[in-house]
Amino acid sequence: MPNRSVFYVSDGTGITAETFGNSILAQFAAKPRHVRRPFIDSVEKADKLVSEINETFEQEGRRPIVFLTLANTEIRNVLTGPRCKAMVMDMLQAFIEPLEEEFGMKSNHRVGRFSDVAKSQEYSDRIEAINFSLAHDDGQSAKNLAMADVILVGVSRCGKTPTSLYLAMQHGIKAANYPLIPDDFERSQLPSALTAHKRKCFGLTIDPDRLCQIRNERRPGSKYAALENCRYEVNEAEAMMKRAGISWLSSTHKSIEEIATTILRDIRPDRLIY
Amino acid sequence: MPNRSVFYVSDGTGITAETFGNSILAQFAAKPRHVRRPFIDSVEKADKLVSEINETFEQEGRRPIVFLTLANTEIRNVLTGPRCKAMVMDMLQAFIEPLEEEFGMKSNHRVGRFSDVAKSQEYSDRIEAINFSLAHDDGQSAKNLAMADVILVGVSRCGKTPTSLYLAMQHGIKAANYPLIPDDFERSQLPSALTAHKRKCFGLTIDPDRLCQIRNERRPGSKYAALENCRYEVNEAEAMMKRAGISWLSSTHKSIEEIATTILRDIRPDRLIY
Repeated sequence: MPNRSVFYVSDGTGITAETFGNSILAQFAAKPRHVRRPFIDSVEKADKLVSEINETFEQEGRRPIVFLTLANTEIRNVLTGPRCKAMVMDMLQAFIEPLEEEFGMKSNHRVGRFSDVAKSQEYSDRIEAINFSLAHDDGQSAKNLAMADVILVGVSRCGKTPTSLYLAMQHGIKAANYPLIPDDFERSQLPSALTAHKRKCFGLTIDPDRLCQIRNERRPGSKYAALENCRYEVNEAEAMMKRAGISWLSSTHKSIEEIATTILRDIRPDRLIY
Repeated sequence: MPNRSVFYVSDGTGITAETFGNSILAQFAAKPRHVRRPFIDSVEKADKLVSEINETFEQEGRRPIVFLTLANTEIRNVLTGPRCKAMVMDMLQAFIEPLEEEFGMKSNHRVGRFSDVAKSQEYSDRIEAINFSLAHDDGQSAKNLAMADVILVGVSRCGKTPTSLYLAMQHGIKAANYPLIPDDFERSQLPSALTAHKRKCFGLTIDPDRLCQIRNERRPGSKYAALENCRYEVNEAEAMMKRAGISWLSSTHKSIEEIATTILRDIRPDRLIY
């Protein structure tokens, strides 16, 4: 059982504090308890939170760590003041001052609010991309592939769907995905819907043992899930992608975040700049 | 045109550097050009990147800002060394040393790698949640609603689908979504599939004008999209949720990130701690 708590505290969603805090903590062998405290947007809420933090300190005998992104000075002071018994990592403060000097302007003391984001073009593009990716999941519709930014190809259950949705949600990329199936392998030809779009295709592959495990969860004991069949499909798919000049990546030991970033870099380097 | 570039540099995906950098920059009226440079995992790549940064400095006449999450000391030194003409915000460094002292242990100089994440239970849960949310999108399947962590309800096109997918992808929450349709309003009853699960229902609503706009993009000129019909549906849906004791939120000025965090806080506060 962990005997140390980490609090992610923000006047917004706290996603920034959490993402950053997780990166830092990954550098330590410690396994603390994580507590998210979003929307701390008043002095009252901050006061109540300090009481919670101090109670945690009493219980655990070690001071909690607080990763803080709070723009309002008055609210922030409650957390950074003497009553709070935590070790506070004030993430904005550390970088705001040097940037104020560099930019020659004062900061406006607002955290990056997702509400502002919600009204932006970038946000609409993300929502549109999600709808596109859903409508073009698993080869459902081939007719708008010309509008796709990226088309993921690979055998059934190799990770195409979550990766497409992540590309859409995080990066506003219209990511279709199209399965390679036994019929294609028998014909030894890329599905005809894809031939015009080879340059924006990206392949996913997977270790056959892992694929067998995933497919057996879905259809236990089927020919579809059998290890021999998984080996056959993966081999054929890789050979087909090689012939077509489609680059690919294995999803076995990679997360959707890593796969998506690689696809962006290799297929849409323009989208690395915005 | 922006005359200042911001680089997000990492030996991993760079998502941490970017999320954090965006939060900081949101505090300034500046609109810089953003450049993502992920997977900088060798001295050679770092050298090449420093040349790119220095060329950018020449062109823009202002030193670029670099948000850096690089764990390897040798590679990091290339970016923080004297050849690099950027203002470098070394994000890990600022917090690692105080934490080493607090924990009484050395850091292991590894950035939070998503590869490690990919093997974890938490990651499998996220992928499973994505599959669940897809299979339970738009009331497609009512039979496994008992297994859902959250059920989003609301009129067609109010933002249920992207929010469910985000809850699944970011938080590993099995989020089903179920539409409220004119048939339900005529009967003045919550869909029967939902009555047993009221406590995990969360409503989304939307400004009728915005709804009309969204629906007209999909089915221009239809009765479905008409403002009068949108007003009727939204009113009826809100009245129905009120009667059923389901709390709700408007998606009109909120992002999926904010809605998802609110749902977590209100419906699954247990998931704020992990």
